[in-house]
Amino acid sequence: MFLGDYGKRWSDMTAEIICVGTELLLGNIVNTNAAFLAQECAGMGISCYYQSVVGDNAGRLEEALKTAVERSDIVILSGGLGPTEDDLTKEIAAKVLNLELVTDERSRQRIAAFFQARGMEPTENNWKQAMIPSGSMVMDNHNGTAPGIIIKEKDTYMILLPGPPNELIPMFQESVVPYLNKINPGIILSRTVKICGIGESKAETMVKDLIDSQTNPTIATYAKTGEVHIRVTAMAADEEEGRKLLKPMIKELESRFGGNIYTAENDVSLEQAVVDLLIEHELTVTCAESCTGGMLSARLINVPGVSEVYKAGFITYSNKAKRKLLGVKKETLREDGAVGSRTAREMAEGAALNTKADVAAAITGIAGPDGGTYEKPVGLVYLSCSIKGNTFVEEYQFNGNRAKVRDAAVSYALILMRKCILESFGEAAGEKG
Amino acid sequence: MFLGDYGKRWSDMTAEIICVGTELLLGNIVNTNAAFLAQECAGMGISCYYQSVVGDNAGRLEEALKTAVERSDIVILSGGLGPTEDDLTKEIAAKVLNLELVTDERSRQRIAAFFQARGMEPTENNWKQAMIPSGSMVMDNHNGTAPGIIIKEKDTYMILLPGPPNELIPMFQESVVPYLNKINPGIILSRTVKICGIGESKAETMVKDLIDSQTNPTIATYAKTGEVHIRVTAMAADEEEGRKLLKPMIKELESRFGGNIYTAENDVSLEQAVVDLLIEHELTVTCAESCTGGMLSARLINVPGVSEVYKAGFITYSNKAKRKLLGVKKETLREDGAVGSRTAREMAEGAALNTKADVAAAITGIAGPDGGTYEKPVGLVYLSCSIKGNTFVEEYQFNGNRAKVRDAAVSYALILMRKCILESFGEAAGEKG
Repeated sequence: MFLGDYGKRWSDMTAEIICVGTELLLGNIVNTNAAFLAQECAGMGISCYYQSVVGDNAGRLEEALKTAVERSDIVILSGGLGPTEDDLTKEIAAKVLNLELVTDERSRQRIAAFFQARGMEPTENNWKQAMIPSGSMVMDNHNGTAPGIIIKEKDTYMILLPGPPNELIPMFQESVVPYLNKINPGIILSRTVKICGIGESKAETMVKDLIDSQTNPTIATYAKTGEVHIRVTAMAADEEEGRKLLKPMIKELESRFGGNIYTAENDVSLEQAVVDLLIEHELTVTCAESCTGGMLSARLINVPGVSEVYKAGFITYSNKAKRKLLGVKKETLREDGAVGSRTAREMAEGAALNTKADVAAAITGIAGPDGGTYEKPVGLVYLSCSIKGNTFVEEYQFNGNRAKVRDAAVSYALILMRKCILESFGEAAGEKG
Repeated sequence: MFLGDYGKRWSDMTAEIICVGTELLLGNIVNTNAAFLAQECAGMGISCYYQSVVGDNAGRLEEALKTAVERSDIVILSGGLGPTEDDLTKEIAAKVLNLELVTDERSRQRIAAFFQARGMEPTENNWKQAMIPSGSMVMDNHNGTAPGIIIKEKDTYMILLPGPPNELIPMFQESVVPYLNKINPGIILSRTVKICGIGESKAETMVKDLIDSQTNPTIATYAKTGEVHIRVTAMAADEEEGRKLLKPMIKELESRFGGNIYTAENDVSLEQAVVDLLIEHELTVTCAESCTGGMLSARLINVPGVSEVYKAGFITYSNKAKRKLLGVKKETLREDGAVGSRTAREMAEGAALNTKADVAAAITGIAGPDGGTYEKPVGLVYLSCSIKGNTFVEEYQFNGNRAKVRDAAVSYALILMRKCILESFGEAAGEKG
């Protein structure tokens, strides 16, 4: 049932991930590509037994590729497709598979157009990006200049992807997934149930029996700041059968997690879920931020179509700005401090009043590294949400460095906004975990 | 001069990192251990040519270890030291090096004490953690039960570390670094020269001769949005000699890139450089953002100590907000549109006026995916910076998806702010790339 044109049962096919780049070998960047590619392979039911990293070195890359081709059916490479002399992936891939490099006319035109649009002259190096191993398939790069390449040569699929995650991820999803799904007669269908307001260990305990007894569909949990994602994956002959397999498990999760589930759609983020709720209930929104300095607004405004509900927001880092832009009272700041429950409440209420928005979220906290005291340590954050005249405040003590505290504050503010909107419309938002 | 007790010049010694764990192969966790270990090795002047990940599988781990021992002098392993049957690292390491496993009395006592302190009974499995390859050295684990192990066998150093980062990192710093420093008489010193306003290929062309002729120090370039980083690395007997080696190369880069260099300090980011300039010249700052929705403020406010210069900022996503909060004229919005050069200028000037800030940056653009037209396509962004009454505007056409356009807009806004501050104080800010 799962026989591809490759003649192997799909579940017997193995993939291997090779990430190319000296910056990885030096530890300058963390290898998030490997985790992404591994997750995607697992999601498609492809076993991945090896990941490796090699630098921009012809000899070692060739050695790694030869080893990979011998032991794996699909070799996925990231990085080394850029225009510089260091970028060797395509050249070595062609050498290992005994293929010539030829000019891809379409890629050449795309590069010419890219530079023309910027009024710039391509250098000799840039044309290198239009060269491809003969007989290979080009994948367009909508977010950069390096095209991706799929080579099928005898018993091996070799997939070459650009290194920057914001180029690699969309290319993989747009071009590689459909390609692999086409050579795979069975399909893998997966859906992610996303939960907020419940901690990871608690969520895991709540599904332990399902994990222990899983066969098809399988389930796996992943933790994110303030969220837990449960991925349900089914192997099936076609999409209809896949959906049928997924349905009872999704239903079971819904009955266990109820209002804590903010979506069961793969592509919906927490901020998207909040914006969807705002649009659904025709609510406008504003934010007033101190320690997060605009991160909450930035996340909301990352949702396309947010202009319907988001009009204006405030960054009030100083006490004076909190007073002047949001009308926080002098006494409140004196008695409660810049980081306090009353201050957070007045920030939200002032922002709502000032912009006439239906929903206003406010964040004030001590992100560190300085500014902490015994009474108000680094990580203390007050979140407030005002909705049509009712204002709620929550106090959190987050762990970690400045970036981590700010990131957590924003996630929990989104969770609070969601809860306030749902409850104000009489819907259950789940328990606080 | 660089001869360790190992008999090789230190700079010829190579390390290799192997991370063991099925959760890495499935992409359930991102491999931050590899980046940490790679950075530490680079910092000690140990070349690391390979990183790999294998699952909890005896055969594949043995194969990976054999390959590593053949090609590298130091093999660093993380993970697989736990008490369960899946944990195989120690057993396979002993097998590959032909060593027996023996009980380490001290580790046995530590494990007994660990469980006694918790009123728990160790299981049979727990005693497995006290077994070590004969003749090896034990490193205490202050944050868990699995001890670390260093094996020196003929030509190979093998270093076994626990997988959880909060156990691995302190153990590496407390025990492995001193051990490697003892057998390493030389040091590695590196500095990163960070450049903005010049594209990657152009910057590379400008240092090609230096890269081609590099020996000690070596140089390498890395691209970031709007920035190019050039890392200069020297190998030396001590810090003083290292500094002497770095100095002429840093000077050469300074003469080539001039005002385009925003820092030659490793830990300084672009936003930190801008905040430092503001503090140095005693300038307060504000931001008015449309499509970036707070990202510019968020980046500035990520710099500790920014409260001295940043007081308040605005997110003006709607036309009404631009008018009401920033005083952008109705005619301007009608004639120039929400995304236009005059609108950007009035946003910056209005923000400066409203907050009495010395410097005001404004961003308005079309981040997509919707909202683009033939005249104003997705990616069109206007940046403005007003400094003490003088206002500058730049037009950019960025590529990529919504996230990429917004990210680029913020980076180039920081570059514009830097340029305006420098020029207003008569300093050169380099050319526009």
